[in-house]
Amino acid sequence: AQAQAGSSVQLFGLMDIGVQALKASGTDTRYLVNSDGNTSSRFGVRGTEDLGGGLKVGFWLESAVSVDDGTSGATSTNNKDSVSGGLTWGRRATVQVSGPWGELRLGRDYVPSFGNLTTSMHPFGTNGVGSSGIMFYPVPANGTTARTNVRASNSIGYFTPSGVNGFYGHAMLALGEQGAGPTRKDGQLTGVRIGWRNEALNTSAAISKTRYATGDYTQSNVGMSYKWGPARLMALWGRNEVGITRTTATMLGTQWEVWPQGELRFAYTWLKARNVASDATHIAIGYVHDLSKRTALYTNLAKVDNKGRGTRFNVGLATTQPGGDSGGFEAGVRHSF
Amino acid sequence: AQAQAGSSVQLFGLMDIGVQALKASGTDTRYLVNSDGNTSSRFGVRGTEDLGGGLKVGFWLESAVSVDDGTSGATSTNNKDSVSGGLTWGRRATVQVSGPWGELRLGRDYVPSFGNLTTSMHPFGTNGVGSSGIMFYPVPANGTTARTNVRASNSIGYFTPSGVNGFYGHAMLALGEQGAGPTRKDGQLTGVRIGWRNEALNTSAAISKTRYATGDYTQSNVGMSYKWGPARLMALWGRNEVGITRTTATMLGTQWEVWPQGELRFAYTWLKARNVASDATHIAIGYVHDLSKRTALYTNLAKVDNKGRGTRFNVGLATTQPGGDSGGFEAGVRHSF
Amino acid sequence: AQAQAGSSVQLFGLMDIGVQALKASGTDTRYLVNSDGNTSSRFGVRGTEDLGGGLKVGFWLESAVSVDDGTSGATSTNNKDSVSGGLTWGRRATVQVSGPWGELRLGRDYVPSFGNLTTSMHPFGTNGVGSSGIMFYPVPANGTTARTNVRASNSIGYFTPSGVNGFYGHAMLALGEQGAGPTRKDGQLTGVRIGWRNEALNTSAAISKTRYATGDYTQSNVGMSYKWGPARLMALWGRNEVGITRTTATMLGTQWEVWPQGELRFAYTWLKARNVASDATHIAIGYVHDLSKRTALYTNLAKVDNKGRGTRFNVGLATTQPGGDSGGFEAGVRHSF
Repeated sequence: AQAQAGSSVQLFGLMDIGVQALKASGTDTRYLVNSDGNTSSRFGVRGTEDLGGGLKVGFWLESAVSVDDGTSGATSTNNKDSVSGGLTWGRRATVQVSGPWGELRLGRDYVPSFGNLTTSMHPFGTNGVGSSGIMFYPVPANGTTARTNVRASNSIGYFTPSGVNGFYGHAMLALGEQGAGPTRKDGQLTGVRIGWRNEALNTSAAISKTRYATGDYTQSNVGMSYKWGPARLMALWGRNEVGITRTTATMLGTQWEVWPQGELRFAYTWLKARNVASDATHIAIGYVHDLSKRTALYTNLAKVDNKGRGTRFNVGLATTQPGGDSGGFEAGVRHSF
Repeated sequence: AQAQAGSSVQLFGLMDIGVQALKASGTDTRYLVNSDGNTSSRFGVRGTEDLGGGLKVGFWLESAVSVDDGTSGATSTNNKDSVSGGLTWGRRATVQVSGPWGELRLGRDYVPSFGNLTTSMHPFGTNGVGSSGIMFYPVPANGTTARTNVRASNSIGYFTPSGVNGFYGHAMLALGEQGAGPTRKDGQLTGVRIGWRNEALNTSAAISKTRYATGDYTQSNVGMSYKWGPARLMALWGRNEVGITRTTATMLGTQWEVWPQGELRFAYTWLKARNVASDATHIAIGYVHDLSKRTALYTNLAKVDNKGRGTRFNVGLATTQPGGDSGGFEAGVRHSF
Repeated sequence: AQAQAGSSVQLFGLMDIGVQALKASGTDTRYLVNSDGNTSSRFGVRGTEDLGGGLKVGFWLESAVSVDDGTSGATSTNNKDSVSGGLTWGRRATVQVSGPWGELRLGRDYVPSFGNLTTSMHPFGTNGVGSSGIMFYPVPANGTTARTNVRASNSIGYFTPSGVNGFYGHAMLALGEQGAGPTRKDGQLTGVRIGWRNEALNTSAAISKTRYATGDYTQSNVGMSYKWGPARLMALWGRNEVGITRTTATMLGTQWEVWPQGELRFAYTWLKARNVASDATHIAIGYVHDLSKRTALYTNLAKVDNKGRGTRFNVGLATTQPGGDSGGFEAGVRHSF
């Protein structure tokens, strides 16, 4: 049925699905029908109420969707363990109050240091075989599997008002809410992001630290995006520290509007590892073709190369050979509502 | 996207989130970002169709939302075990047919004896550190964890037509639908509620009985609410029997409209225990401030005191000392859509 | 709240709930409040965008609903194992692109051979005690529990354009996406359906084959429906092969419009079994009464009789006696939105 007209609730979403071929050293090629090659699929409900005097209150509920099988995505109640098995509003669940002084946001939300890994600073954002996540997400170590490299639950966030001389900022405190004992502060995150943008340049630095009894997790990064004619040049530096381990990645890339409906994407990333995994590189090229404002076709091609005896990094299919590489190709359609 | 206009489906919901501090004898203070300090957060879809001749049919799907982490709530398929792990329409899932003769409702719904535990008879309803649930919900005993103190699945409910001389009534039969053997009638509930209200007075008595092979569960209560000037005076008596155990609580309290936008809340409850737990008291004070018809700020402060060697009752953080007490404070925002 | 007017997203659904009594040889009668006696309950979101030039893109998200307890239904990420525990879009999750050349559909969808088991070729479709599923769904054997007799995940489907001389067709390839090793192709389905219809006649044949290391699964069937005055005469032949086992069922039945608001349903099915289970018969009679275009009352009565020493087949309550039978009665209300 059609929903009633009148007020302030919005159903929204995005569906991205395509076919994917993956190949890694020592394995057969795998073919997949896969979600999210271009943008993360989602279903959500959101709304805003104007309280007068510049004050607004709003809510946001957003869940992940795997279009290929109808499952949703995980969340975490304590920023330490993963919870899944049906629809969760794991992508975002917040109530926010905003005014001339900025915005206060409570609930489950993106951490400050995630902002630089999206398409604002990385040509592919966190999707597909070109995903920034391949090189810029943390490597689990010594019992610490960080769950806060993208979002955190039980968070209190503050955003500066938009448009004050181009500056923007985001600070977050998120609680782990564990019981007593040595792990009781596990999952507690503090993070901050500061940036500046005008019509051509956007640059920002961020750091988020999460406490874990098995080894704290720190994500820090600096991104830059510069519009140069039809191209947007991008550079991203990011570091993940889990206990005494450390991976540091640097990316140079571009989103290039080759004609009004088409955007070429390219990114090259090199990663240095310490006390964990091994060095690696990631090269990706893609093309996005708009069919309308809401719908696009896309294709991506990427390769990840492990250095030395490394096997950690791949585009979705693990290599079975030390120092092996893996490659992936995908083509799909993205549709938003 | 915006949903189409035209007919009869309503998206509805409520989001309540705040910060909470809890302290119990012998433990450190715990800080939480927590949902539902004032009202239970929810997301739902509902609609009605007029069939003519005074006959209506409607449906209602409602799920719980933990705004702090994006999880939903549990349900039970047999009124005995709990099912969770993703969105369930566990708050309510019904189809109802109504006419001049009343309303017939099938599915998962509130049990008759829950009606008296809400804000109609208790100043805090079942939310936050002042929640009626702390003293008026059953204590598990001898293997019986009652799942029917709030809702029951597989139910057939009848509601009397509204506005017949002020009388109202609700009867329910809910099936447990277990297999064969000694537990085959487990989870079968029968309940009834009868009340009367006019502009000033609202009073009602209810009883629900659920069969469990490990010990039947009976919830009975009597509530009264009387509007006296700006104040609504409330009294509630409730008993929970699980097998041979019994807890009986009595509450006196008020919701007091101190000015058009603000309501003060107060409740004092004492509980007598037999064959389980120990006596205890619960005192709570709160304030709710309306920012609009849809949005409010609130704060609550409460203390639970176990008598004798008791440790069973608390405001959300268990005491580690016999006869210990616990206290909680919270402040948050509630927004409905 | 009411959702905003303007565009192209539709909330839709159907709720079906009733009471059911089941009896099997050697057991007590069981009473249930049950969903889906007439039609499968569902909640979904869907939309379409016109891209111009005859091209359209659309999406569809649909979840099962158990109205009696608020749970949802399962899906499978690999067409081999079942995933449940909260809302999944397990009934359908697709993005589709259509044009004069037909429709391409990606995601989780119905398999081609399911089309003949619905109310288009079987008086009761796959619901209630008269369900085609009782005789036309596969019997698990030797470790193969087929998950693809209704839907498949990771699918690429093609539908012929509608209305080309009455012919219609559907082809599907669905991937299993398992890891390496002997089960790596498990869950890979290929299927095709070809049919022809005019105002009076609708006939179609279909076959779907799914690979499983423990024994492949093949579902094949032929259906026919012929409108003869107020009656629609139906015949259905279907075979399920799981490894070396085989069950073959044949149904004769009718949907008969006894007056504008009422439809009588009848179906008689006999099943032959080889290397698994035993022969059996299924007889069902039902009546559906429309209260409006969106709402109907219904009732069904059915009996399943196992031959020889068989105990496999039943209307929902297993017989405890070799060669036993089982019967079921149900009455309920169906409401769509």
